[in-house]
Amino acid sequence: MDGQSLIAAASAVGAGLAMIAGIGAGIGQGYAAGKGAEAVGKQPEAQGVITRTMLLGAAVAETTGIYGLVIALILLFANPLLG
Amino acid sequence: MDGQSLIAAASAVGAGLAMIAGIGAGIGQGYAAGKGAEAVGKQPEAQGVITRTMLLGAAVAETTGIYGLVIALILLFANPLLG
Amino acid sequence: MDGQSLIAAASAVGAGLAMIAGIGAGIGQGYAAGKGAEAVGKQPEAQGVITRTMLLGAAVAETTGIYGLVIALILLFANPLLG
Repeated sequence: MDGQSLIAAASAVGAGLAMIAGIGAGIGQGYAAGKGAEAVGKQPEAQGVITRTMLLGAAVAETTGIYGLVIALILLFANPLLG
Repeated sequence: MDGQSLIAAASAVGAGLAMIAGIGAGIGQGYAAGKGAEAVGKQPEAQGVITRTMLLGAAVAETTGIYGLVIALILLFANPLLG
Repeated sequence: MDGQSLIAAASAVGAGLAMIAGIGAGIGQGYAAGKGAEAVGKQPEAQGVITRTMLLGAAVAETTGIYGLVIALILLFANPLLG
């Protein structure tokens, strides 16, 4: 077994591990969705502004999941560790 | 044992790890479902707008789970690390 | 040890790891069921619409668990990594 294969194998595991970051965004955005639905139920006439605030916050919560995705894609498609 | 087999083996583990991201969407979307049911119970006449907000938020929460699925499918079917 | 055996062994681990995603749907749907029961207890006359909203949200929360199941089944029955 050569060293390059070991690095590539570890990169595949690393890419999978990086995706675990998505747990946080999933929980957080779901919480935002629940609170948004609750608020719209209380003030249906404010639906536009509630939805806008919910989506703005969810977009921020998405960032760390996207960081994980970017690292996974780098490990797979532009791996600087492979010579 | 050859290097390609090691990379393929590690990719199988990586694909499994990537799916763990789905924990977040499950918790978050379930929370949104609970809050949506609660809100509909209080204002049944606002059911349409509550359900719409709940589903919109849940769709955003789904994204990181789909990122994990995409990485897993790449590792299995279009693995760039396998020569 | 030959490479095919290593890939098959790692696929068994990967399939197991993929199922961990189910933690999320279990927690989330349980929360939705609890909130649904609470809401029906408060407004028994709105039971139909509450149950419908709860089941709709729970169906969405199921998706990431199903993604994990699909990846596990692919690793077991249609493994593209095994030559």
